[in-house]
Amino acid sequence: MTSIDLNADLGEGFGRWRLTDDERLLSVVTSANVACGFHAGDPATMRRVCELAAERGVVIGAQVSYRDLAGFGRRAMDVPPAELAAEVAYQIGALEIFARAAGSRVAYVKPHGALYNRVVHDAEQAAAVVEGVLIADGGLPVLGLPGSRLLELAAQAGLPAVTEAFADRAYTDAGTLVPRGQDGAVVTDPEAVVERSVSLARSGQVTARSGARIGVRARSLCVHGDTPGAVELARRVRDRLEASGVRVESFA
Amino acid sequence: MTSIDLNADLGEGFGRWRLTDDERLLSVVTSANVACGFHAGDPATMRRVCELAAERGVVIGAQVSYRDLAGFGRRAMDVPPAELAAEVAYQIGALEIFARAAGSRVAYVKPHGALYNRVVHDAEQAAAVVEGVLIADGGLPVLGLPGSRLLELAAQAGLPAVTEAFADRAYTDAGTLVPRGQDGAVVTDPEAVVERSVSLARSGQVTARSGARIGVRARSLCVHGDTPGAVELARRVRDRLEASGVRVESFA
Amino acid sequence: MTSIDLNADLGEGFGRWRLTDDERLLSVVTSANVACGFHAGDPATMRRVCELAAERGVVIGAQVSYRDLAGFGRRAMDVPPAELAAEVAYQIGALEIFARAAGSRVAYVKPHGALYNRVVHDAEQAAAVVEGVLIADGGLPVLGLPGSRLLELAAQAGLPAVTEAFADRAYTDAGTLVPRGQDGAVVTDPEAVVERSVSLARSGQVTARSGARIGVRARSLCVHGDTPGAVELARRVRDRLEASGVRVESFA
Amino acid sequence: MTSIDLNADLGEGFGRWRLTDDERLLSVVTSANVACGFHAGDPATMRRVCELAAERGVVIGAQVSYRDLAGFGRRAMDVPPAELAAEVAYQIGALEIFARAAGSRVAYVKPHGALYNRVVHDAEQAAAVVEGVLIADGGLPVLGLPGSRLLELAAQAGLPAVTEAFADRAYTDAGTLVPRGQDGAVVTDPEAVVERSVSLARSGQVTARSGARIGVRARSLCVHGDTPGAVELARRVRDRLEASGVRVESFA
Repeated sequence: MTSIDLNADLGEGFGRWRLTDDERLLSVVTSANVACGFHAGDPATMRRVCELAAERGVVIGAQVSYRDLAGFGRRAMDVPPAELAAEVAYQIGALEIFARAAGSRVAYVKPHGALYNRVVHDAEQAAAVVEGVLIADGGLPVLGLPGSRLLELAAQAGLPAVTEAFADRAYTDAGTLVPRGQDGAVVTDPEAVVERSVSLARSGQVTARSGARIGVRARSLCVHGDTPGAVELARRVRDRLEASGVRVESFA
Repeated sequence: MTSIDLNADLGEGFGRWRLTDDERLLSVVTSANVACGFHAGDPATMRRVCELAAERGVVIGAQVSYRDLAGFGRRAMDVPPAELAAEVAYQIGALEIFARAAGSRVAYVKPHGALYNRVVHDAEQAAAVVEGVLIADGGLPVLGLPGSRLLELAAQAGLPAVTEAFADRAYTDAGTLVPRGQDGAVVTDPEAVVERSVSLARSGQVTARSGARIGVRARSLCVHGDTPGAVELARRVRDRLEASGVRVESFA
Repeated sequence: MTSIDLNADLGEGFGRWRLTDDERLLSVVTSANVACGFHAGDPATMRRVCELAAERGVVIGAQVSYRDLAGFGRRAMDVPPAELAAEVAYQIGALEIFARAAGSRVAYVKPHGALYNRVVHDAEQAAAVVEGVLIADGGLPVLGLPGSRLLELAAQAGLPAVTEAFADRAYTDAGTLVPRGQDGAVVTDPEAVVERSVSLARSGQVTARSGARIGVRARSLCVHGDTPGAVELARRVRDRLEASGVRVESFA
Repeated sequence: MTSIDLNADLGEGFGRWRLTDDERLLSVVTSANVACGFHAGDPATMRRVCELAAERGVVIGAQVSYRDLAGFGRRAMDVPPAELAAEVAYQIGALEIFARAAGSRVAYVKPHGALYNRVVHDAEQAAAVVEGVLIADGGLPVLGLPGSRLLELAAQAGLPAVTEAFADRAYTDAGTLVPRGQDGAVVTDPEAVVERSVSLARSGQVTARSGARIGVRARSLCVHGDTPGAVELARRVRDRLEASGVRVESFA
């Protein structure tokens, strides 16, 4: 039987500010990318999200970021590798305490925002993220884009490299994401998102922007929770996956 | 044979800024209170200090603080208990990653600056610090002032409560520290500091400001490293302790 | 003809996070307390709020705070007076640039959150806030609670001291606010809030929690914008004030 | 008579941390690039540096930076232009308050660290810095590298574009700086630095790394204050300039 993981970003508030409906998202996804304080995520929120995730059997991952609260981690930074590796490890360690206290543990690492995009191509920063993961725990899976330098270097370092896909993003024929800002980069029709999710999970294929069918190997689907209707859409995706005979479960 | 621990604050730089001569201090002390990023201590520095401490066999402790880089953690803050507990746990967790990576572990917790002073009397914040330690690890010793609410509540919670004394601070007849700012609050004569250290370690007594001999029970002596000549003085303290037949060793 | 000012906190997002509906609030109030970056308020938001305020003829005030993004400025801090004065001036200066660029200027200063509450009683911090205002501009009005040390010291320093009242907060017989957390501290019935607003503006009186009528002298009413329905309520308050013959206009 | 300006970075501490010997540097230079809080520079330090500069008749400039305390502004960031412009204006505004309170004013703007290097080539960020300056004050001079996009766009916007040179850095035949990290990038011999300073000031020429004499047009020389002996060297540079008949004075 085919299975797929559903992951989403959670705990992305900071202090007084809230962004995601963590509680409802945790009733849908199987993996929670928890913000660790560098782009979002105050300690009390991290603790609460870990407790909720553990209660619901949702796997906890560290969503590591550049140190950039003002830019929500969306501004690429030229961080020297040794600093970046230490910053990644710091974030994992901080989250690990709350995961353990909740009876769970940090089970994977996923870079956030600009760092996520940077390590697709930037070998130096990708290596620094891998080093940060190794500092923290020699066996942690890394979640990222198929074909990214990050997953390539993670695999070389002996870390499980877990691929993910985006049902709400358009793909080029080469299997890469159409950059945001280009026409049709984001799939906005909910039913299309649902169908693409099922296709990705069942056949490992999706229709590219050109109309061609392409292969996109993904062990996890990323769903979003920070826009109106996002949680409902994630729910529909999960329901349809299960109705289609796909088992929705963590990769961990 | 009598023994005493020597602890000092380390890693109190941040990014471009440096404060303490970590490398030389680590050749003197037996316990390193490592800054965890809230009042000082960037991740790369935390990593390096943990590596140096582990190499020299110096025990690593988490020096936890209010979130206050601008004030170096010296400005008391009314942090709600649940927030404070989570902030304490977050800092311990971040440091634990680097301690483990260096082949060591976080072996105790000591509050810094304004938080240290606050939890002498403030039961609510003291309880929050204890809760933060419990979130992180149910067995971690807590280092603080004899008679403080912090040590009282730590002991009630089943955590080892470790007392410390200050050879360079004047004491009242009641055994409390003469507040900074008052006449004679700080002992500046190096030889006096050395002699007080030996007295504290060997007899558990020190001469109060009044001239009376008082008992000050301390399992650890705090030495400072952030002023000119401080490392040399710490070295003299250690040498004299050993020459006096006191074994200088960690309490952990 | 009686007149009253309506002030509200604006621009209290930070980067990715939003809190208040600045645009709609600016169509209701006559004075905008703009966050200046210490508890909320990134530079781009400050700029936009100043432009919107200037367009609508809303007077711009600097809402100065402790440096505490993680706590939204709601955690009292023991900031040494010289630091606090400089921090206050820094915030005013930063906002002034955007106010001037929009063709307006910073026309008053109001402390935020924990600092607001602290300077009701704490003469040292109140004096530091006044000093900060004087560093920035020797003539800026200060907005605060009647009877507060802040307004007392502001007046002594020659700064216009502007009083404000809260139509949605219960008052004691002594004319002070019933502390949050006590029964009935917040008036939740919208019609009651509207009636209290009119009474405060027209007669300078309000019904205290005890049922007694008390005098509350206020040149400005503070309305809130960070809860569901808050903007609508502020709109109702303004409409009823005007229907009651009260001119709603800035004190500046 | 030939004249030249001497500028240096000042006020680059933060809270407990100090970097430069501001007081001694201010007895040497004619222009002070004052850190404004984004890479360094707490408000109390900004205030003090402005007071000292005003007392000594040293001209005050805003040293604006990326928001990056942890990296001391040395990590290039992809900040969207509208955000960057607002961040630049914010910093200028904050400093202006302290300059005015000291009886002076912000008389120029100089980007710091990674931003300084970025705007040599990056037209988008250079334009954002210029926009930030225009938000703050339509007539402020901008200090930068000859041939940089920053100075080019500043001039196009009607801002005085002021060139600077570095007597302690090697130049290519094209008149650009040899990148740090390359052999001979930094001139370490003090006498060579002094001679190059005089040559730059008197003839507008310097010996490139290749040995060729090249022209480097500079209205200001940047001297450094953050290394041992730096202030003494700056003093020697100034003394020799004056002994060589060069008037050392601000460009403002």
